[in-house]
Amino acid sequence: MDLTAIKNPQFLKKMSKEQLTELSEEIRKFLITQLSATGGHIGPNLGVVELTLALHKIYDSPKDKFLWDVGHQSYVHKILTGRACEFETLRQYKGLCGFPKRNESEHDVWETGHSSTSLSGAMGMAAARDLNKTGAHVIPIIGDGALTGGMALEALNHIGHEQTDMTVILNDNEMSIAPNVGALNNVLGKLRTAGKYNWVKDEMEVLLRKIPAVGGKLASTVERVKDGLKYMVVSGMFFEDLGFTYLGPVDGHDFDDLFETLRYAKKTKGPVLVHVITKKGKGYLPAEEDTVGTWHGTGPYKIESGAFIKPDKAPPIGWSKLVSDTVLRLAHEDKRIVAITPAMPVGSKLEQFAKELPDRMYDVGIAEQHATTMAAGLATQGMKPFLAIYSTFLQRAYDQVLHDICRQNLNVFIGIDRSGLVGADGETHQGVFDISFLRHMPNMVLMMAKDENEGQHLVNTALKYNDGPIAMRYARGNGVGVSMDDELKEIPIGSWEVLKEGTDATILTFGTTIPMAMEAAAQLEKANVSVRVVNARFIKPMDEDMLHSIFGEKHPILTLEESMLQGGFGSAVAEFAIDHGYYQTKINRMGIPDQFVEHGSVTKLLEEIGLTTEEVVKNIQKLLQFNKKGLEVL
Amino acid sequence: MDLTAIKNPQFLKKMSKEQLTELSEEIRKFLITQLSATGGHIGPNLGVVELTLALHKIYDSPKDKFLWDVGHQSYVHKILTGRACEFETLRQYKGLCGFPKRNESEHDVWETGHSSTSLSGAMGMAAARDLNKTGAHVIPIIGDGALTGGMALEALNHIGHEQTDMTVILNDNEMSIAPNVGALNNVLGKLRTAGKYNWVKDEMEVLLRKIPAVGGKLASTVERVKDGLKYMVVSGMFFEDLGFTYLGPVDGHDFDDLFETLRYAKKTKGPVLVHVITKKGKGYLPAEEDTVGTWHGTGPYKIESGAFIKPDKAPPIGWSKLVSDTVLRLAHEDKRIVAITPAMPVGSKLEQFAKELPDRMYDVGIAEQHATTMAAGLATQGMKPFLAIYSTFLQRAYDQVLHDICRQNLNVFIGIDRSGLVGADGETHQGVFDISFLRHMPNMVLMMAKDENEGQHLVNTALKYNDGPIAMRYARGNGVGVSMDDELKEIPIGSWEVLKEGTDATILTFGTTIPMAMEAAAQLEKANVSVRVVNARFIKPMDEDMLHSIFGEKHPILTLEESMLQGGFGSAVAEFAIDHGYYQTKINRMGIPDQFVEHGSVTKLLEEIGLTTEEVVKNIQKLLQFNKKGLEVL
Repeated sequence: MDLTAIKNPQFLKKMSKEQLTELSEEIRKFLITQLSATGGHIGPNLGVVELTLALHKIYDSPKDKFLWDVGHQSYVHKILTGRACEFETLRQYKGLCGFPKRNESEHDVWETGHSSTSLSGAMGMAAARDLNKTGAHVIPIIGDGALTGGMALEALNHIGHEQTDMTVILNDNEMSIAPNVGALNNVLGKLRTAGKYNWVKDEMEVLLRKIPAVGGKLASTVERVKDGLKYMVVSGMFFEDLGFTYLGPVDGHDFDDLFETLRYAKKTKGPVLVHVITKKGKGYLPAEEDTVGTWHGTGPYKIESGAFIKPDKAPPIGWSKLVSDTVLRLAHEDKRIVAITPAMPVGSKLEQFAKELPDRMYDVGIAEQHATTMAAGLATQGMKPFLAIYSTFLQRAYDQVLHDICRQNLNVFIGIDRSGLVGADGETHQGVFDISFLRHMPNMVLMMAKDENEGQHLVNTALKYNDGPIAMRYARGNGVGVSMDDELKEIPIGSWEVLKEGTDATILTFGTTIPMAMEAAAQLEKANVSVRVVNARFIKPMDEDMLHSIFGEKHPILTLEESMLQGGFGSAVAEFAIDHGYYQTKINRMGIPDQFVEHGSVTKLLEEIGLTTEEVVKNIQKLLQFNKKGLEVL
Repeated sequence: MDLTAIKNPQFLKKMSKEQLTELSEEIRKFLITQLSATGGHIGPNLGVVELTLALHKIYDSPKDKFLWDVGHQSYVHKILTGRACEFETLRQYKGLCGFPKRNESEHDVWETGHSSTSLSGAMGMAAARDLNKTGAHVIPIIGDGALTGGMALEALNHIGHEQTDMTVILNDNEMSIAPNVGALNNVLGKLRTAGKYNWVKDEMEVLLRKIPAVGGKLASTVERVKDGLKYMVVSGMFFEDLGFTYLGPVDGHDFDDLFETLRYAKKTKGPVLVHVITKKGKGYLPAEEDTVGTWHGTGPYKIESGAFIKPDKAPPIGWSKLVSDTVLRLAHEDKRIVAITPAMPVGSKLEQFAKELPDRMYDVGIAEQHATTMAAGLATQGMKPFLAIYSTFLQRAYDQVLHDICRQNLNVFIGIDRSGLVGADGETHQGVFDISFLRHMPNMVLMMAKDENEGQHLVNTALKYNDGPIAMRYARGNGVGVSMDDELKEIPIGSWEVLKEGTDATILTFGTTIPMAMEAAAQLEKANVSVRVVNARFIKPMDEDMLHSIFGEKHPILTLEESMLQGGFGSAVAEFAIDHGYYQTKINRMGIPDQFVEHGSVTKLLEEIGLTTEEVVKNIQKLLQFNKKGLEVL
């Protein structure tokens, strides 16, 4: 059938199993083809084709509420709710979002991006349903990886206690982004091989009746065995302990199995957990055979070979690799250095570290809070933990950074990966808040390198630093292609660097916006405007000596950052100016205004929010215009 | 014995059970007497007297590491490690901290205050121990309430998976601060009554041997029953499922039981969970009989009667009560209003709400992340959730406020209780970061009332607001004693109020620092300095019209806040001045500098950081001095 003609999932109700099987194939072909051009989360979506069809057949969206945890597995749902025609624009500027989006469709009732939020959201929806008596079914769909996130566990605990009607679909593909870790995963492993709970229960009932009575003692034991029945074989009782009716495991690619179980779940009172086993990448061999997570989310690829389409020229080293490799290099010299990742060994490029120093590498699963405080625990014992964590996920560990690391002033090196705009993943993933949420934490040192060579020196600086927490932001993407020093240096904490001298104005910037500033300065040079560009590589503490010297010149200052303006770096400079009474220096702040930034290419997004060379030039010109007019115009 | 003569816990090694029992009584007497004068966490500490003695007898601190989760139950530990003599200064300025503090003693290896951090910290310490082969035992002591916090569950999952040597003491008093909620609590409840695991296991073994073989099927079933044995009766298998050896339940007031179990735990490989049942308030009747949490932490009291020592004059209404009562009043009119608390029904004064509208009140346990995102879920369905949460604990839900509430722009009213300095609980509990971490969140409205009458109007404003999230800060403590309007009003979002006109300078402030500003203005008036005082009740968005008007006057501005200077309200005013080119207005920012603020009375702490009427007066004078000299001095 023509998938782009689908308006809503109503048509599924009348479809036979055979038709649905055919449709599954068509959807898989569509996804494999479309995503080969746009890239996207191919693996997770190929894994949930039958599951999503079954959910939309058995339940009535949008009356019934699907909450897609993390949300990158919602493509099939998007196809079934009338959005197949938009897949050419997937993850592109103003195009289809790679995650559920409420303004895209009434079928997207819960926006996600970060992991483990669906159960709490579902509990809220279910509570509202019970108060308003709407009778809606609430169905969070959560992966086995996301289930280890603390807030999902908090929610399980609460939902089980309240006995709220809800069907949790546990989409168990034995892998989230990387292979899962955690005891819960072992529980699931046992379940996968245990066969079905109900079967066991029935068999045991029959057998119990055969046990002869041999006195009062055995009779009471039979009772106890009956009570205990539910603990037989099935460690799924883990979930029953938490108050859930456990159903499964279900073959997530078998419609009969899915229909039967979902229909049963639908009529069951209280919270139900349906354990569905799916195969990530199902139906596309390269993705099926992936064991490390390469096919979780990809760029464009060649369909036949499964080869990723690479740029013509090999790009400079990626930031994650640069940082993790430098940490590894130093770890060979310093036994105190260990590495921690919350489920991102691949994304954070810690595979090599894991290979060379497996005992000193901890992948704790999707558990940012635990990862952060575990780093604090290591540091109390004199170790030097490197905590690699994406900027947007570090948000999950705000309190742990503040309460456990900064307050105890511990030597933890936080590698803030994917800082700044990340592009296609959109507003849930932009790493634009970290400066604003770290800058007010006492004891914190925060830095960002201008290029990969300085980057390696800053990593070295961080791991030599012994006075408390130190964090380094680095962008999603690659370095700029500079040559690398052989010897690692230490860069004095709080020291900035003048990249280009200038006498008419100064641009204070750091990291990814430095090239923009340099280009603007070059353009202005041609117009006889002499602009200094400063690499403000320490965001906290700032180089106060240099600041005093620059402010003393009374020429205008432009601050430029790929992060939020509220409480950001420009705000720190404004505070400095105010606190030190520098009233004759005109300042302008460029950065991300008070809004969430949607998905699209980083270049496009920077244009949208006015972070471009042209705007830098314009702003400098405005500042100089003002300065010429002088203070009397005020 | 003389408790104040204790230098370290070494002396316990030689003590007999009888001597320890006597010592327990002495410690109880000491605590009851000391705390009757200073106040403190009496209930939790009376509950762990024998447990703490047993731990220090069996293990060797500081080589072995005790991590006291939350930490308010560490008083006995403090007595045994040489700090009894300091109890007169408990929770007072420069006195003994109410929580573990590394600079107080080498026996305090992990600082706490917020809940559920101990297991992650312990995992870090155990990992360091294993790398450095120190052989140290690592013993986190966590309450049944704290165990429901997401990060503790993340840690359980990781520790169980890694099979790290560690003994987790689960101090189960069936109550954390308020009675516990959550399915895990039900699991514990079953365990408490189930008797000991080992006993059950032995009995079943014997019984199984009596079952006659009736063919191959039964034989295999016997095998299965044997495998399943561990699931019998004991839902403690919940913890064994997670990879822990479960020992218990142990009577936490019986030395024999404690010694036997701890000795067994000490020699057991891998992670062990010792389930210890204690009685909160044990040995002091008023505290023992407490069922709601009144005796969790108290002020001074009369020992004989257990009556709390009240101030001579009844204080004005407390802020928590004012806010929760107003929400309740409005909830009777508006069915969409519901209330959520993470384990603080008493602290947040939601008991009356729970009584009158039990179906619309959710106590989710210690689970700030879940509470926050559940509020988001409710709001997606058109409900108006009131999320009552202490400022310092809202830090735990930073990402949930940003990613789930603000990003989806949902109508959640966050009541930020205990904002500003809280005093005796010290640096882990000061509510001084909320402005800095909320101000950069798009869509957020943030406000604080000058008095309880305005407070009720702001609550009304929040619950009538339909354009997204809105948060109200309110202080720990009481209102100022103004008379209350009968009718609730709506206060225009972003509107400030001039409390006192003035022509020489303006103080922009809000909430608790308003009286200080008014008093300073009054003093300055006498010196013929005319100071305007503005109630900047909306921290975000600010009253930009009024700001333009004030800046237009070019007289100096002082910002005054009981919160962090970095990224705070003063920073917002600095940003405004810079962004709008107001260069002729001298600004000074008063607030909390870049440091953690320790425990002590709020008055004392304000003095320490220079937030006093005198300093306000001095700063205004300096600003005016500057202004007289004029810009030419620069």
